[in-house]
Amino acid sequence: MHQLIERIFVATFGNPLLDARHDAAVADLGGTRVAMTTDSYVVQPLFFPGGDIGSLSVNGTVNDLAMAGARPLYLSAGFILEEGLPMETLWRVVRSIQRAAQEAGVQIITGDTKVVDKGKGDGLFINTAGIGLIESPRRIAPDQVRPGDAILLSGDLGRHGIAIMAVREGLEFESAIESDSASVAPLVLALLDAGIEIHCLRDLTRGGLASALNEIAESAGVTMAIDESLIPVRDDVRGACEILGFDPLYVANEGRFVAFVAPDDAERALGIMRSHDVGLGAHLIGSVGDLISDHAAAVTMRSAIGANRVLDMLSGEQLPRIC
Amino acid sequence: MHQLIERIFVATFGNPLLDARHDAAVADLGGTRVAMTTDSYVVQPLFFPGGDIGSLSVNGTVNDLAMAGARPLYLSAGFILEEGLPMETLWRVVRSIQRAAQEAGVQIITGDTKVVDKGKGDGLFINTAGIGLIESPRRIAPDQVRPGDAILLSGDLGRHGIAIMAVREGLEFESAIESDSASVAPLVLALLDAGIEIHCLRDLTRGGLASALNEIAESAGVTMAIDESLIPVRDDVRGACEILGFDPLYVANEGRFVAFVAPDDAERALGIMRSHDVGLGAHLIGSVGDLISDHAAAVTMRSAIGANRVLDMLSGEQLPRIC
Repeated sequence: MHQLIERIFVATFGNPLLDARHDAAVADLGGTRVAMTTDSYVVQPLFFPGGDIGSLSVNGTVNDLAMAGARPLYLSAGFILEEGLPMETLWRVVRSIQRAAQEAGVQIITGDTKVVDKGKGDGLFINTAGIGLIESPRRIAPDQVRPGDAILLSGDLGRHGIAIMAVREGLEFESAIESDSASVAPLVLALLDAGIEIHCLRDLTRGGLASALNEIAESAGVTMAIDESLIPVRDDVRGACEILGFDPLYVANEGRFVAFVAPDDAERALGIMRSHDVGLGAHLIGSVGDLISDHAAAVTMRSAIGANRVLDMLSGEQLPRIC
Repeated sequence: MHQLIERIFVATFGNPLLDARHDAAVADLGGTRVAMTTDSYVVQPLFFPGGDIGSLSVNGTVNDLAMAGARPLYLSAGFILEEGLPMETLWRVVRSIQRAAQEAGVQIITGDTKVVDKGKGDGLFINTAGIGLIESPRRIAPDQVRPGDAILLSGDLGRHGIAIMAVREGLEFESAIESDSASVAPLVLALLDAGIEIHCLRDLTRGGLASALNEIAESAGVTMAIDESLIPVRDDVRGACEILGFDPLYVANEGRFVAFVAPDDAERALGIMRSHDVGLGAHLIGSVGDLISDHAAAVTMRSAIGANRVLDMLSGEQLPRIC
């Protein structure tokens, strides 16, 4: 249903700036190139190990701007409160937003609050929209991906989705699995400042790594090959995935992204990524293969035992209300 | 509660750009002055005479940008759907958004959809955020209001709030009272293009005319005097207000605003306003009085029978979910 809705939205609102396949829109504003994006956050529970709906609503939107190569500057925040929400819950979330905004280097400059009657909401929903400044002349988008590009992954997979599901399912581990929710904007800006030839960036939220690679492969009309043994997944996350029946390659992350960079820049880019906390676990996980003409793009993965398999889009249900 | 929340938000996110008393924030973006605003729309019912949640979500946000003197350009749209919402309802709303965006001259450039389980939402909530370009060097804000300013009202009051309440209460009139929901941006831009010395603009949404005047009087530290006989209210709206126990001066509008302009420009401004459909009923309703030093600003109104009374802020409950 989700994909159906998005397609009809694109068909209705269709304009060159609305690209359902990109995290943020890029537009001209009086001669200045800006990126704009929005997300509503309906995550349940509101608080989880490693984050809460407040920090998530900042990091998610900031990261979408960063994926367009933009410097995130300003955020709006719209709150829909269900009557009866404890005020101290709201203050905790508001303080968390402010902390996350400071860490990400953005300002909340405008906001709105609506209250709905009890039973007509679910505690708290937050929408943030963000605008950022695009300083680099290089266009960063799926159609810029080229054969031979190196595919860099910024860190280990699966922590956000598993952190949420573990709370919901009441799973207990020796130590709590914390969400990876974080702003990756400083890391992306460092790559741009260093002149790394970045062709495309994509954060690994809904649908995880596998869906991101497939979407980009389809947009760019290329094949991709990655190596499972190079993809970091923590043992506890892998164990939880087995218990819950998830594949970490499809689980949502909130502080992870892939970068498609010119092969000559791959090593230098990895060095920059690893110099940031959020990129400590960065790896080169594969490369872009040939152009394919029929758009039947295929992402293949060499498994740990050496077999190649096709890595499909996520089929079936996404994890609900993960962000 | 609403005011409490807004005050604490301002205290927490406090920065020079976040001004709870202004409809949109004005910020610098790479040397370009832009306005940004956001609103969530939770109106019930979703469809009402003269509009729906879709057109409202465009007009409301576009008007907030116009109130900062900005040319509205780009909107984001975030949808929170409750499971079970009929798809045809969604398409009607989406088409309405697109029509309203075209009429207002803005593009929807980015969007997001979230689905929440049945019973955790209320059909459909929409958040829009907007950005606009500020082309005029003049700052338009409450603190720019000066003694002697003419107070212009763009049209008749009370239709939006009464249109909603009439549907909710099952009231029937000879002809339906239609919401005044409309974009006023072209009218505002025409005033600016004509060089009208505008000091402040405010749309008359939550709390209506009376609250808007009081907020601005307080911010500017001035008194204001208006004349009840000059304020247009349609007979059917006045009748419905009497039945429902509302005062039209406090009822929300979605296509009405007040403009504080230099007295020498008042007549010319009125002429421009009346040349637009949304300003056909524009009137000069009063003027700004003296500066007052103790911030105990007072708005007084000469009634139809010639008595002066203080026009207070709205006390007690606002109409819930009117937008």
